Amino acid sequence: MEITADMVKELRQRTGIGVMECKEALKEANGDLEKAIEILRKKGYARAQDKMNREAAEGLVGSYIHLNGRIGVLVEVNCETDFVARNEEFKELVKNVCLQIAACNPKYLCPENIPAAVIEQEKEIIRAQFKDSKKPAEIVEKIVQGKLKKFYEEVCLLDQVYIRNDKLTIRELIASAIAKIGENIKISRFARFEVGKP
Amino acid sequence: MEITADMVKELRQRTGIGVMECKEALKEANGDLEKAIEILRKKGYARAQDKMNREAAEGLVGSYIHLNGRIGVLVEVNCETDFVARNEEFKELVKNVCLQIAACNPKYLCPENIPAAVIEQEKEIIRAQFKDSKKPAEIVEKIVQGKLKKFYEEVCLLDQVYIRNDKLTIRELIASAIAKIGENIKISRFARFEVGKP
Repeated sequence: MEITADMVKELRQRTGIGVMECKEALKEANGDLEKAIEILRKKGYARAQDKMNREAAEGLVGSYIHLNGRIGVLVEVNCETDFVARNEEFKELVKNVCLQIAACNPKYLCPENIPAAVIEQEKEIIRAQFKDSKKPAEIVEKIVQGKLKKFYEEVCLLDQVYIRNDKLTIRELIASAIAKIGENIKISRFARFEVGKP
Repeated sequence: MEITADMVKELRQRTGIGVMECKEALKEANGDLEKAIEILRKKGYARAQDKMNREAAEGLVGSYIHLNGRIGVLVEVNCETDFVARNEEFKELVKNVCLQIAACNPKYLCPENIPAAVIEQEKEIIRAQFKDSKKPAEIVEKIVQGKLKKFYEEVCLLDQVYIRNDKLTIRELIASAIAKIGENIKISRFARFEVGKP
């Protein structure tokens, strides 16, 4: 089957991948556009790990207003190129991250962003529960670490379970988007305001 | 000069204030509409002061996305009742505050919110410009205060000139909304994200 310039152009538009790679993928897929996308996506997955360190200075700011303005969310999600930022798949990701923040009310992006004093206070609260127990100190410390992990899963966006697929954390959702889209993607910041609440 | 019903009607539309007060202001201003607005504004501001201490725990979270997602704004504007929060005039105010934040990029809500270190640094920069001048210290201090005011007008949302009416600051816009709507109104917080910028 002949690979026309129009086919390459469409594949490029849908994937953002270079002419030569698009041409090759179309040849491999016998001109089947969907198959060619699949081939490019698999190649992208293998490359995903390397991409996480690449600079991502493009992207989108997305917002979501819930309950007629009682809750509002603003998020910045970055990617490498303006092309991906305008991609529907990327826009969908930004929208889903907004919904997650509105529904699950994370306080921080990741554990590294929690002030040391907050973690210390949380540890104190957990330890206090075992003050009168006869458990050895190492066991208590293990329990503290386990409960701290639960705390992160509650307050950190990247550690939260994704509301639309409980098999994924938000960190894993982003990783799978990197593999699919083929560029580094990261959530850099978010804000969530609820009327009358701090 | 005779005050016609049409003149009163126009003044009412532009200020949202009652017939009798509009008529009086027009009389006082000899039928000059702009002058009448100025009179009502001063009166309104005086009345607004009383309301500014009342609790405002209702309100709206509004958002605005500019340039296809390159800039995003989130703002919480509070009022006293849910009834006002659902009022079109209040919604319009929230929208206009969003536009202001998107266009003028304030860093803080008001001077009180600027960290002391930032103000100190700004003062140092201004003073440095007069290091070699022969001006007396009190004069330099006056210049510093003047330039500091300019700095506030640049970085503080409430001190910024309103983009849609350069005769008002945002603080005055809010005061006139209090006078018109008759409830305490306050901007409690905002966020502005621009892709790839801190």
